[in-house]
Amino acid sequence: MQHEKFSGTDHLYMQVAQGLEKMISDEVLLIGDKLPSVRVLSEENGISMGTAFQAYYHLEAKGLIESRPKSGYYVRFNHRKYPALPKMVPADALSHEVSVKEMIASLYSDIASAKVINFALAVPDLSLLPVGKIQKSAVHALKHTKDHCIGYEHTQGNPELRKQIARLCFNWGGKTKPDEVVITNGCLEAITLCLQAVTQHGDTVAVESPCYFGIYQAIENLGLKVVEISSDPVTGADLACLEKTIARFPIKACVCIPNFNNPVGSCIPDENKKQLVALITKHNIPLIEDDIYGELYFGKNRPRTCKYYDTKGLVMHCSSLSKSLTPGYRVGWAIPGKFIDEVKQVKRIHNISSASLTQATMAHFLQHGRYEYHLKNLRKALHTQSLRYIQAVIDHFPPDSKVSRPQGGFVLWIELNRKVDTFRLRTEAMKHHISIMPGRIFSVSPNYSNCIRLSFGKPFNSDMEYGIMMLGKLIKKMV
Amino acid sequence: MQHEKFSGTDHLYMQVAQGLEKMISDEVLLIGDKLPSVRVLSEENGISMGTAFQAYYHLEAKGLIESRPKSGYYVRFNHRKYPALPKMVPADALSHEVSVKEMIASLYSDIASAKVINFALAVPDLSLLPVGKIQKSAVHALKHTKDHCIGYEHTQGNPELRKQIARLCFNWGGKTKPDEVVITNGCLEAITLCLQAVTQHGDTVAVESPCYFGIYQAIENLGLKVVEISSDPVTGADLACLEKTIARFPIKACVCIPNFNNPVGSCIPDENKKQLVALITKHNIPLIEDDIYGELYFGKNRPRTCKYYDTKGLVMHCSSLSKSLTPGYRVGWAIPGKFIDEVKQVKRIHNISSASLTQATMAHFLQHGRYEYHLKNLRKALHTQSLRYIQAVIDHFPPDSKVSRPQGGFVLWIELNRKVDTFRLRTEAMKHHISIMPGRIFSVSPNYSNCIRLSFGKPFNSDMEYGIMMLGKLIKKMV
Repeated sequence: MQHEKFSGTDHLYMQVAQGLEKMISDEVLLIGDKLPSVRVLSEENGISMGTAFQAYYHLEAKGLIESRPKSGYYVRFNHRKYPALPKMVPADALSHEVSVKEMIASLYSDIASAKVINFALAVPDLSLLPVGKIQKSAVHALKHTKDHCIGYEHTQGNPELRKQIARLCFNWGGKTKPDEVVITNGCLEAITLCLQAVTQHGDTVAVESPCYFGIYQAIENLGLKVVEISSDPVTGADLACLEKTIARFPIKACVCIPNFNNPVGSCIPDENKKQLVALITKHNIPLIEDDIYGELYFGKNRPRTCKYYDTKGLVMHCSSLSKSLTPGYRVGWAIPGKFIDEVKQVKRIHNISSASLTQATMAHFLQHGRYEYHLKNLRKALHTQSLRYIQAVIDHFPPDSKVSRPQGGFVLWIELNRKVDTFRLRTEAMKHHISIMPGRIFSVSPNYSNCIRLSFGKPFNSDMEYGIMMLGKLIKKMV
Repeated sequence: MQHEKFSGTDHLYMQVAQGLEKMISDEVLLIGDKLPSVRVLSEENGISMGTAFQAYYHLEAKGLIESRPKSGYYVRFNHRKYPALPKMVPADALSHEVSVKEMIASLYSDIASAKVINFALAVPDLSLLPVGKIQKSAVHALKHTKDHCIGYEHTQGNPELRKQIARLCFNWGGKTKPDEVVITNGCLEAITLCLQAVTQHGDTVAVESPCYFGIYQAIENLGLKVVEISSDPVTGADLACLEKTIARFPIKACVCIPNFNNPVGSCIPDENKKQLVALITKHNIPLIEDDIYGELYFGKNRPRTCKYYDTKGLVMHCSSLSKSLTPGYRVGWAIPGKFIDEVKQVKRIHNISSASLTQATMAHFLQHGRYEYHLKNLRKALHTQSLRYIQAVIDHFPPDSKVSRPQGGFVLWIELNRKVDTFRLRTEAMKHHISIMPGRIFSVSPNYSNCIRLSFGKPFNSDMEYGIMMLGKLIKKMV
């Protein structure tokens, strides 16, 4: 039962690995130090040779140590030696007509090419997804679902899938009922429907800065105005700034990505989430929460959501399976609190309902515990990849580069020297078939023009190393 | 090869049946007349007994004749004895803020129940759909598509599916290229995206009256205004009325259902389509054409589309497989002419792309000629059902009821005595577990309050007969 391996208390090899990791972080072991041999490690800890090997494999996979042929294991990396964090840009507290449309259209034209070393798209690599098991669930759905998935599904979505999503909410302490969930075509549609449910053309909404460009586009497309809220690269939205903004503008909705923010990677501490929800509740403003990365945590526990602290039905929770399981299935959802009827209505108006087959497939997959098991592996893989990518950035980028420390998800936010125009960097990189997302598209103000977002969704390999090396070269040329 | 049976020239039995049908229609044979015995028919026409039987079966299935036990076949029905057609209501040529939302929300709450005799939903019955073959295509798609349909599909849609849709366009003479097609989540999403592509909040669009309520809702949801164009129950939109409207209002788009209109069943003659396209081209106004019922013709040939006459890329053709193959797959498309980039953009903003799996399944199904074969059977079944339903209406509704003569699709439009409020009729009918669509929701003006739309998508059986009989009783009570 491979399943057991990851459940319950940590295994012996993990305890030993964690001990070593702490010694590296405390600088008891320094970069370049030789580690004890496997035999010595096993004797010292009273563990088998096999377990000792496992501990070293684990640290090696994380990129903390390296094995040198015929020599043994050496310390390679120390979390403490991280470059500085990108800084918070104070938002300018102006209401903007949104206009990132053209910029993004030009970006999408060439990044889908298979030849490109793609740091731009935030998708997990397909090699990290349980394709075979998804197939099995699809075949089961085809055979055993009512109408064989030919007929219309309810506008609100497949009842069994909604039950499974309600169960997923347990992970963050949610007590969601299946009939509080509305299935959508991915998280972005969920956010759009929630915005439509609570705003009118010309209204103003508050978003974190920087913010995922898809959210700006949804806002622009609905004819809404936007005010940006300063955000800390570790703790997220600045509540004092939000309070001031609410006093100054007739804010009709707030949008935030509380956990493992795209692009900055911040995670709002649970206490701040509580305060954020108290603030919007005081002013009776709906909060649209994009929790698409919430399950992809690297730490021990899943962070809570804003929805957890919601007492008045004002938090509209949105998420999907697109970043963790089946990007192409377009299965997302909203838990829109007291606005559920409005959300169902705009869903029906837009496309009646989501596809029956993909919903039934995901219902079966989740029902059989396959998602939890998959997530455990995916989190480990992404954690390892994050460290590998960060290391490569440290190795190849100029030393004044500032790098985020994501504790989940799969994007890095990198602030470069002020002289670097990352829109130009992107153009130069594309000549070498390397794609990145320039920081400028994550704001409606002319901020972040020296920042980039780097996705680490693909396993680190020599192509990726080459890509980062080449980016480093281009950046150095531009300074 | 059952496939052959329907292709090429008509079979012998059809020729004989058509001869008899003409005699009924010319009143050479009157209702109640006894038909020649099978033996006589076979001798007279020099055909086998089997072929003679087939001819009678065909006419019986169409409801034109009936077999009486131990007696033979009798004429039962004459197309000429149809009740009068519903009349054209002159549109009031006012610009309206749309507001049918609440009315429709209340309608949807109870009609999905399985216990209801459902004349309200315009969907083909699942027994008419080739479930097994669709399953096979789905399994093929799961096994053989790149990424096994887990990864994101292009925003524009699956390339093979777009190729197949371009081929479908041959049926109406279209010379569409695959890269002119954008895949959507059903036809309604296609219409919404087209509207978004060519209008701004507050703009005015022209629609036929009456008009499918889903289109009104899409228009309302985008904050657009609407002007209604009078439509003839046989030939569709009144071009003189449209021309006047264009002169009076700043019309930014027209929306029409040219073929087998929902709800009135009209089919714009090809010559009128040509004139309609010339008119909108003269004024440089985009025409959004909803051709969702176009393939479901009862006659010999598929009617053309407005797109066929489009020379400037102003016609935005929309359709889907939801009414003819897989309602729950949500596979539709737009062929938006010169606005394709705008449509792709709003599609991406709303939900990135449609599901990979359902698209790949439909691509495979269409690629293997399965759709053409299925359509031939579906058209015959729907034609027969239309006659059966009309007969039942004639049998049970008051004689002053006026009934449309749909030549395709699967909805009947019935105009009742002026005294009948069909919203009230609907409430009464629901008490007997019978659902209908009241005419009032097909207009923003207070028109059609004595009309109903009756879907004949389900095979006619004793439940349906009972439902129509009961409706007739309720109507008679209300007069």
